[in-house]
Amino acid sequence: MVQPILEQVGGGVLAARGFVAAGVACGLKKNGARDVAIVAAEQTVPVAAVFTTNAVTAAPVVVSRAHAADGAARAVVINAGNANACTGAQGMADAREMAAIAGGAIGCDASEVLVCSTGVIGVPLPLEVVAGGISAAAGALSVSGNDAATEAIMTTDTFPKQAAVRFSYEGVTYSVGGMAKGSGMIKPNMATMLSVITTDAPLSSAACDVALRAACAATFNRVTVDGDTSTNDTLILMASGDAGGEAIEVDDAAFAPVAAAIHRVCEELSRMLARDGEGATKLVEVVIVGAASEADAERAAFSVADSPLVKTALFGNDANWGRVAMAVGKSGAALDPAKLAITFAGIEVCRDGGAVPFDEDEAFAALDTSEVAIEVDLGVGGHSATVLTCDLSYEYVRINGEYRS
Amino acid sequence: MVQPILEQVGGGVLAARGFVAAGVACGLKKNGARDVAIVAAEQTVPVAAVFTTNAVTAAPVVVSRAHAADGAARAVVINAGNANACTGAQGMADAREMAAIAGGAIGCDASEVLVCSTGVIGVPLPLEVVAGGISAAAGALSVSGNDAATEAIMTTDTFPKQAAVRFSYEGVTYSVGGMAKGSGMIKPNMATMLSVITTDAPLSSAACDVALRAACAATFNRVTVDGDTSTNDTLILMASGDAGGEAIEVDDAAFAPVAAAIHRVCEELSRMLARDGEGATKLVEVVIVGAASEADAERAAFSVADSPLVKTALFGNDANWGRVAMAVGKSGAALDPAKLAITFAGIEVCRDGGAVPFDEDEAFAALDTSEVAIEVDLGVGGHSATVLTCDLSYEYVRINGEYRS
Repeated sequence: MVQPILEQVGGGVLAARGFVAAGVACGLKKNGARDVAIVAAEQTVPVAAVFTTNAVTAAPVVVSRAHAADGAARAVVINAGNANACTGAQGMADAREMAAIAGGAIGCDASEVLVCSTGVIGVPLPLEVVAGGISAAAGALSVSGNDAATEAIMTTDTFPKQAAVRFSYEGVTYSVGGMAKGSGMIKPNMATMLSVITTDAPLSSAACDVALRAACAATFNRVTVDGDTSTNDTLILMASGDAGGEAIEVDDAAFAPVAAAIHRVCEELSRMLARDGEGATKLVEVVIVGAASEADAERAAFSVADSPLVKTALFGNDANWGRVAMAVGKSGAALDPAKLAITFAGIEVCRDGGAVPFDEDEAFAALDTSEVAIEVDLGVGGHSATVLTCDLSYEYVRINGEYRS
Repeated sequence: MVQPILEQVGGGVLAARGFVAAGVACGLKKNGARDVAIVAAEQTVPVAAVFTTNAVTAAPVVVSRAHAADGAARAVVINAGNANACTGAQGMADAREMAAIAGGAIGCDASEVLVCSTGVIGVPLPLEVVAGGISAAAGALSVSGNDAATEAIMTTDTFPKQAAVRFSYEGVTYSVGGMAKGSGMIKPNMATMLSVITTDAPLSSAACDVALRAACAATFNRVTVDGDTSTNDTLILMASGDAGGEAIEVDDAAFAPVAAAIHRVCEELSRMLARDGEGATKLVEVVIVGAASEADAERAAFSVADSPLVKTALFGNDANWGRVAMAVGKSGAALDPAKLAITFAGIEVCRDGGAVPFDEDEAFAALDTSEVAIEVDLGVGGHSATVLTCDLSYEYVRINGEYRS
């Protein structure tokens, strides 16, 4: 199959037909910025979702998992400013009530609404405040509400994160769009990744699930800012079917191009997450090749991407390949030390496990940019993996070390 | 058995009889500080050693592993300023030559000398420079050379690390002492842990090995500064037998008290390593209780101790228990979210998985000190583990992010 060309378009999470969105301010964010968002389909549609693997799971994750279990949903309601995590039975009741209030305002059952929260942990949700925000957001839903919704889910994100693509296949035009928030916090607490993806392709629930899990595994699950996994991470895909045509199942010809478009949107959003990691000055792409298996490649890539010594060297524009050799060496991935090869920003610095002379000034200049790739050949096989991350700067320490006030 | 009382004494690695040491400057450290150390027994003695698990292993580690394999050694030669790692066949030849030069000067075979290096990676060792240092150190060996030797192995360590204890058992007086270097570098490269422990107890080689591995597992292996494992980590125990008496085997009554003394010295040195972690403002003790197994307890403790979000919060004196809940939750250890309990510096902040109100000013004051304990009860069993670490400060970023010059 020739993969259709994906055209980048605007509109973010509302690029796909059949959805409306809104973002309003209800007072959870102290600075008065928007803090409640809703993304809703015009009717109940197929849905799939993936959630944090953290054993300490926030109440909204528990509720959303239950509400997505039947593969159908009408809307997603999101608040920023309070994670509703470690909040016990009251937190569970509050998350359910958020779904009920949104459902009541939109005109659907509570069980058709997924709930996401991000912000401070261990603090009871001020439900009356959030309830007002949900009602206001429901009243403001429109086909041009994507910017406001995207803004409302931001915490310490320094820019809003939206992406969308459009393509034609067999005479039908499909769109996939999405929004995401990355690593940040209202009060210094914990980073949370939230993302909502929409498409007007008539994917079935099962097809949504397969496409979302495949895209997530290769994109969001290969981003790391600090190796910490939030209690609230949530990624949701809704498929309106407004592009027309019969339901697309995994075995249908149209599935692959739609899945590829979903993959692309997830990839663009995840690159934005890495670029906007707390305190980041650059996006870093860690590419492992020559691995004995894909799992080994991924393990080695994460070991490099999570190494504070590698990340601080990148902040200093230092092609410090010894730290990269250390990081792949400790990862547990099979490697041949005598065949190890490393390049920084295209500059070969290590070959056959030993140093290759390079111009330090040239390397400094090559690293002093907003996007840097580190490629490592483990020398033992044909498998590869790429993980995205960012550097570790003073600003990361400031953001996360400042006392809560 | 009543455990004999361990008396803390001076003398570090030379507190035990039967050893001499020296530390000299040969020019590897640009500031002219001491950079070559030798610790030698008066004759060939039982030895045990444990080495880095990093798959990218430095040449001196390969050589020392071979030389320690027969359980006997005469001396350890150490240089700081160059790690002799990722240096290929020449690096192996250089490490062997270091052993040969030291052996020649002391009067033993090269195979009786262990070699350690720490410093920049991927740069050929300037052997002629090191050779001069080894000869000078061999000429300077004395029973009071421990301070000079300890100084010579320091890199960015901010203080020298020595510890020693003495005790009597069944009428015999035994001593155990040691020196260590921690997380640092000459040029920003990678942290390396090196430590040499000596005792005058007449431990057999097998007893040395059992005692050292047990002590290491519970002390050095439970310290983390940044989760990065050096290519050069080495811990060595030599037993002179000068305390007198017959060889002590693992089954002998005297083994337990000697092993306990070795454990104590390793524990003190490992606390010094954590306290002197790069940029550290405080020593942090992460205590996990209520775990389903010791492995789970250790996993959860490392997840907390390695979390950049926890470490930056500690730098900010912030009792940010949500990040601790996140870290144990992502660790893979079994836990009951509804029974989770957390204290910071003795202040209860989370009980039954939810917040316990506490005075933020009081907590700030309690954390604004040089030693802080975080205790987490996972609520599922009776196992526990403690891991030592430090906070993550601007200074860590500065030390490791400054461009090599």
